Amino acid sequence: MMTSTEPSLAEYPVVIELPVLWGQMDAFQHVNNTVYFRFFESARIAYGDRIGTHEFMRTTGIGPILAATSCRFLKPLRYPDTVLVGCRTLRLEAAVMDQEYAVFSRRQQRLAATGTGQVVAYDYQRLKKSAYPEELLERVRRLEHL
Amino acid sequence: MMTSTEPSLAEYPVVIELPVLWGQMDAFQHVNNTVYFRFFESARIAYGDRIGTHEFMRTTGIGPILAATSCRFLKPLRYPDTVLVGCRTLRLEAAVMDQEYAVFSRRQQRLAATGTGQVVAYDYQRLKKSAYPEELLERVRRLEHL
Amino acid sequence: MMTSTEPSLAEYPVVIELPVLWGQMDAFQHVNNTVYFRFFESARIAYGDRIGTHEFMRTTGIGPILAATSCRFLKPLRYPDTVLVGCRTLRLEAAVMDQEYAVFSRRQQRLAATGTGQVVAYDYQRLKKSAYPEELLERVRRLEHL
Amino acid sequence: MMTSTEPSLAEYPVVIELPVLWGQMDAFQHVNNTVYFRFFESARIAYGDRIGTHEFMRTTGIGPILAATSCRFLKPLRYPDTVLVGCRTLRLEAAVMDQEYAVFSRRQQRLAATGTGQVVAYDYQRLKKSAYPEELLERVRRLEHL
Repeated sequence: MMTSTEPSLAEYPVVIELPVLWGQMDAFQHVNNTVYFRFFESARIAYGDRIGTHEFMRTTGIGPILAATSCRFLKPLRYPDTVLVGCRTLRLEAAVMDQEYAVFSRRQQRLAATGTGQVVAYDYQRLKKSAYPEELLERVRRLEHL
Repeated sequence: MMTSTEPSLAEYPVVIELPVLWGQMDAFQHVNNTVYFRFFESARIAYGDRIGTHEFMRTTGIGPILAATSCRFLKPLRYPDTVLVGCRTLRLEAAVMDQEYAVFSRRQQRLAATGTGQVVAYDYQRLKKSAYPEELLERVRRLEHL
Repeated sequence: MMTSTEPSLAEYPVVIELPVLWGQMDAFQHVNNTVYFRFFESARIAYGDRIGTHEFMRTTGIGPILAATSCRFLKPLRYPDTVLVGCRTLRLEAAVMDQEYAVFSRRQQRLAATGTGQVVAYDYQRLKKSAYPEELLERVRRLEHL
Repeated sequence: MMTSTEPSLAEYPVVIELPVLWGQMDAFQHVNNTVYFRFFESARIAYGDRIGTHEFMRTTGIGPILAATSCRFLKPLRYPDTVLVGCRTLRLEAAVMDQEYAVFSRRQQRLAATGTGQVVAYDYQRLKKSAYPEELLERVRRLEHL
């Protein structure tokens, strides 16, 4: 995990760096659409590591579940390349985090994709929707200056 | 490819059947979010097979490119299961097809996810946006009763 | 799961049928090498379902772990196609099953790949190698006429 | 691409560094077996970049095709971790490179897996087996001190 010096990712408190792999390209010779959601997921997990999601999940049984996600593809990616993937929370409620993702191509020096994710609090013991622990919400507010 | 007898997919002219694989589950013990986009892609490709997309691509150099896609997760999927995945075009313009996808779980007997895809006409020789051949548009209209 | 009527898979007590997906092809326009191991895994899991591996895992804590696997690629696969994937156990010891896999292409009407897997008994509670329950071994012997 | 300072990879002229992603874990909570072959593939491609495989493929139409591959799993991998993946050619013939791969876990500070790959020269225009250009063979010999 890193803080990006890339201006287009300046608003993202969590940014990870990932290699583009040859095997991620499909028969159209560019990175397959499903791979962008692996990029988003990896940034979302890194964001969760930062705010301690997994630690809360262990102690409270309440964890995140992805309710919806989307991607807008701006420029095709090809191997070889390295991407920076940012994750931020735009809107926070007791039970929902609305996140935004951005994929920046180092080779092309521009955004290759943007995306969204709706991450809902889920009680994995009672198997139903829940609310995030207040301390977790507070950590997101501090991280995002919300 | 098949025409579904499943009521919730009745509006989808193209429906494919796919097995849920054990290896598609992630550490949370249900099918990983990226896999749903593989499901959508497979239905989109089957739809393209039906209207002859690849044949037009060979003769005109103009083919589809995915500009945006989204998924709403309704119920987690687990192995073993089989899903029916429907694809339909809701809105058609000269250069854009707005598609909808639905994933029906045979085991749970209900929809597990819905999604969208924006499929844009692209000139793979001139490397820029284009318009779909009129004959292809006509085939979509007939298939969808648009 | 099915019993194959395909002669080249006649020796395989467990055979599954899987679609080849467009998105499994890589930039060389044929099914990527990693996908064959997903095919093998899916047949291995179906084999485990047949002999009750997961049921034993729940009751004894002892389950299978893959120690080694290999694939020989005979003919490239492309979308569209359907493959039959067979799994059999060639050699059985108290702690090890040596398995063989075969991938048959319906479109090409011939074997596309063969493979091996060494599946070792593992005690998931004590985190160390173990031995398979005698009843499980007996089921494999009956299934394989060993 | 990098030259490793890791003793267990000292014999590997090409070593790449890859992050272990959360989404690469399966329902058994460790990195799925198919992912190791993506690791090997990525190192094989980096090796090909070093000796100029793709440049030869463009000018001669002769490129590599994977005829067989295997993996021995030594220690399970989990997120978070970073792996170093080495690739070397152990035996070289006019038409065949026998390669070896090794996956080193930074977190565990030991080898997590080893593997092999048989990479055969293929004439992608005439669609049949071929021989590697002499200049390419020479580059491998120099790189490997063969």
